[in-house]
Amino acid sequence: MITLDDIRAASERVRPVVHRTPLLHAAALDERSGNSLYLKAENLQRVGAFKIRGAYNKIATLPPEVRAMGIVAHSSGNHAQGTALAARLLGAKATIVMPGNSPAVKVDATRGYGAEVVFCQDSSDDRARVANEIVQKTGATLVPPFDDDLIIAGQGTAMVEVAEDLRDLDAVVVPIGGGGLIGGTAVAAKHLCPGIKVVGVETEPANDAQRSFRTKQIVKIDPPKTIADGMRTQAVGKRNFEIMLRYVDDIVTVTDEEVMETMRFLLLRLKVLAEPTGAVAPAAVFHRKLGLEGKRICAFISGGNVEPSFISTLLNA
Amino acid sequence: MITLDDIRAASERVRPVVHRTPLLHAAALDERSGNSLYLKAENLQRVGAFKIRGAYNKIATLPPEVRAMGIVAHSSGNHAQGTALAARLLGAKATIVMPGNSPAVKVDATRGYGAEVVFCQDSSDDRARVANEIVQKTGATLVPPFDDDLIIAGQGTAMVEVAEDLRDLDAVVVPIGGGGLIGGTAVAAKHLCPGIKVVGVETEPANDAQRSFRTKQIVKIDPPKTIADGMRTQAVGKRNFEIMLRYVDDIVTVTDEEVMETMRFLLLRLKVLAEPTGAVAPAAVFHRKLGLEGKRICAFISGGNVEPSFISTLLNA
Repeated sequence: MITLDDIRAASERVRPVVHRTPLLHAAALDERSGNSLYLKAENLQRVGAFKIRGAYNKIATLPPEVRAMGIVAHSSGNHAQGTALAARLLGAKATIVMPGNSPAVKVDATRGYGAEVVFCQDSSDDRARVANEIVQKTGATLVPPFDDDLIIAGQGTAMVEVAEDLRDLDAVVVPIGGGGLIGGTAVAAKHLCPGIKVVGVETEPANDAQRSFRTKQIVKIDPPKTIADGMRTQAVGKRNFEIMLRYVDDIVTVTDEEVMETMRFLLLRLKVLAEPTGAVAPAAVFHRKLGLEGKRICAFISGGNVEPSFISTLLNA
Repeated sequence: MITLDDIRAASERVRPVVHRTPLLHAAALDERSGNSLYLKAENLQRVGAFKIRGAYNKIATLPPEVRAMGIVAHSSGNHAQGTALAARLLGAKATIVMPGNSPAVKVDATRGYGAEVVFCQDSSDDRARVANEIVQKTGATLVPPFDDDLIIAGQGTAMVEVAEDLRDLDAVVVPIGGGGLIGGTAVAAKHLCPGIKVVGVETEPANDAQRSFRTKQIVKIDPPKTIADGMRTQAVGKRNFEIMLRYVDDIVTVTDEEVMETMRFLLLRLKVLAEPTGAVAPAAVFHRKLGLEGKRICAFISGGNVEPSFISTLLNA
């Protein structure tokens, strides 16, 4: 299991390249939530999501001769862009395996960061198969999306910033996909913020982590139908789950409708664009899923990459 | 004319209540602009615009017995909300005169900050007439939108934050409506940032300040048709103009289309919502209206209050 030292080392590595994202605070947030609520705005991070932190930490620690053989990742989402940009910043060639039906804007963005995109079928199995073929053929290094100590430590660097910027936090609230962000955040939070509660959030259809947490064994679910595309992971990672069992206090869920309503509120009142997965943690606080009142809480907006057409849908809903 | 001391005093007053808004920075901004570009995100300010700064500075300096007789402002826009909230924070009753055809969301927001809304006809003359009637009848104090030393000094406090956060700026770029923001910004910038250029921006249809600046006398234009509603002021204020003649280096214009395109870029790439007037200064830098390259520039996003339906229009355009 990673330690605070691993996260501190990651912070040193990523600091020169990632944004120190702001903490958004507003009277409207406090009124709305019944708490003193701060939002860690990782939607304002490079590539529009926290994923650059883990990917950069991973690739930066590869020996130069390994890095020179290239980087591979498979992702239809933010991990693709995070890995592509991290590789470019470190002078490595990146190949990203994406399903053939990925939105054109995501493919273009990934190519925009200098990566080669290789298409596969739309299943986890086929993605992994194609990525492994590239690894075998070229000697490139696979950058996994979450089940990796360096990735987890990298994602934890956002919480180091939060702990520096905010004293006396009662709780930190984080969305859970595969468990990279909550893994790093939980380790950092429990070591840096005495007495803090760490709460994970999923959408109801994607509640595999909650079920795993309650039964104390990893539950794999069918691909869930949820607007929060970052939550479509079917199971959390092994390393991530170990951390959750040790350091996470609770996992709660929100509905897709609560996520949509929260996205509207964040856009029209706070003036920031969150993607559905990015609105999941604030939604849990807004909709009083934590059973906390009058507390000092930080919730993560994990990302802000949204299709333009989805924003229109959101506003017309 | 106000001095740096006036702005420093205003900073002391407003600091406990306004947000210290973040400076947004991104590789995409630098690539797009050909400069090292930072955006002062006053769209993330309380009430969604810088206007709270000036209004609070004005009302805070009224003697208690004067403040107790109430506050009046006339505005269909952000000055209404800024004045309403500033009054509430200082325990004063606010009456805001708004045109009867103001969007319901703006009326609701103003009432939401505890102000009474009184409707008038949709002309500057009628607004002023109704506001003056209230002043005569109740002894309330009028908080003018821009042509006032305390308002100008208050709006200048954002530039004090910029000067603290950013060294060696080559230029600061600010939208011009009545001249409150550029007035305060110009005085602060020229005293705090040696060698800095101060550039104002208007939309082409609303180029009264540019024409005034060039002819060295205040030009009043017909109500301009522009999407930037904060620029529909027909003439700059007298105090504001004096500052412009002394401290502003240039005034440039952008088209409504350039503003729309910039709003889309800010929303989809930077993940922040700017209102049309808020996007005017970044638009000037993106569209190379300043003739600067490779410089360190700060452009203001002055506000983020947009009708939801307008966002859809923007994304479908």
